[in-house]
Amino acid sequence: MHIAILGSGIVGQTLGAKLLQLGHQVTLGTRNPDQLDDSKGMAGTLRDWQAQNGGAVATFADAAQAAELIVNASSGAATLEVLKLVGAEHLTGKVLLDIANPLDFSQGMPPSLFVKDTDSLAEQIQRAYPDVRVVKALNTMSAALMVDPQALAAGEHTVFMAGNDEAAKRQVAELLRSFGWSDLLDLGDLSAARGTEMLLPIWLRLWQTLGTHMLQFKIVR
Amino acid sequence: MHIAILGSGIVGQTLGAKLLQLGHQVTLGTRNPDQLDDSKGMAGTLRDWQAQNGGAVATFADAAQAAELIVNASSGAATLEVLKLVGAEHLTGKVLLDIANPLDFSQGMPPSLFVKDTDSLAEQIQRAYPDVRVVKALNTMSAALMVDPQALAAGEHTVFMAGNDEAAKRQVAELLRSFGWSDLLDLGDLSAARGTEMLLPIWLRLWQTLGTHMLQFKIVR
Repeated sequence: MHIAILGSGIVGQTLGAKLLQLGHQVTLGTRNPDQLDDSKGMAGTLRDWQAQNGGAVATFADAAQAAELIVNASSGAATLEVLKLVGAEHLTGKVLLDIANPLDFSQGMPPSLFVKDTDSLAEQIQRAYPDVRVVKALNTMSAALMVDPQALAAGEHTVFMAGNDEAAKRQVAELLRSFGWSDLLDLGDLSAARGTEMLLPIWLRLWQTLGTHMLQFKIVR
Repeated sequence: MHIAILGSGIVGQTLGAKLLQLGHQVTLGTRNPDQLDDSKGMAGTLRDWQAQNGGAVATFADAAQAAELIVNASSGAATLEVLKLVGAEHLTGKVLLDIANPLDFSQGMPPSLFVKDTDSLAEQIQRAYPDVRVVKALNTMSAALMVDPQALAAGEHTVFMAGNDEAAKRQVAELLRSFGWSDLLDLGDLSAARGTEMLLPIWLRLWQTLGTHMLQFKIVR
């Protein structure tokens, strides 16, 4: 499948590498695709990513245009601006897997959430682009575990899904299973993203307390 | 130990019954202790509770006065008013186990949270009564599981603790172990209550989705 990833930081690069390994065509969408040697924080440069993994790098709009499925791996605070750069015409009818979180770092650490219990980032995206088929998933664990759940406790932990389009959720579920996920929990319509996005404060606290991001939520039932 | 429980609904009654079984002296604090035949929603009347479990019923102030340890099982929206009825003089120096959540039902279901990512109910209590030794715990599962964790998956799930007083946390941890808890996770100081209180939206969604409150978070690490 042709997949665009919006965002070229550690999460976008990790996800892109995995999707390439699985045989997908992947384009990383980024603000300045000609600046391949820019440092990407915890991740390497895009030139290194391409050298190691193959895959294309393009503007947000060019990446999304050719894609059948789009992954929002941009920072939550930038997401709506990034989608404006993509353009509604490149989004309509497509599945948008939203893995971002509405973290507000403007007051330092720990971040607060710029949208929470009565709304969510995923719902903001859905309202701005009603024809996009938004599915929220993968926003509650580290990038390493997103693409390799078996790396912790043989995959015995939970990935949540929420969305208004059943066919889109089935498509995302298939993708998640191809990553090695077995405990998928469909929470229903997209308003459930409020609950999963609100997991971030305790996730960040757990990271700090346990000293590792190799941690995960399992819903015991 | 002499324990006061503030709140006489299903949570207070369930916790009180368990503590009595374990040999503690328990007083349920309630607004109108002479109205023993009032309906208590999902729980039975206080007359039934007393007949079945023993234990005392008193005003919030009288209950707290004699207690070594106080459990806040009042509804989150009423908590600060209830503590005012208790009186600071009956709180000073005592351990207050806060199991309440800041749920706001004023706009219907699902509830929103009246305090969240930048503050918590537990911290509001601590600021109002600086001499109280507040420990947040047990606010992330149903009353049935609070007192009997072994009833689900042989107890293989997590109870969180947060608080500024290490000795108070040790005392609460001992109490939790006596209930059958084995996976205690100390998240550090009381600001971690922000994260645990923000678990309520997904907890409520999980209850709705799974059709049972016999569900729990396990932190896999």
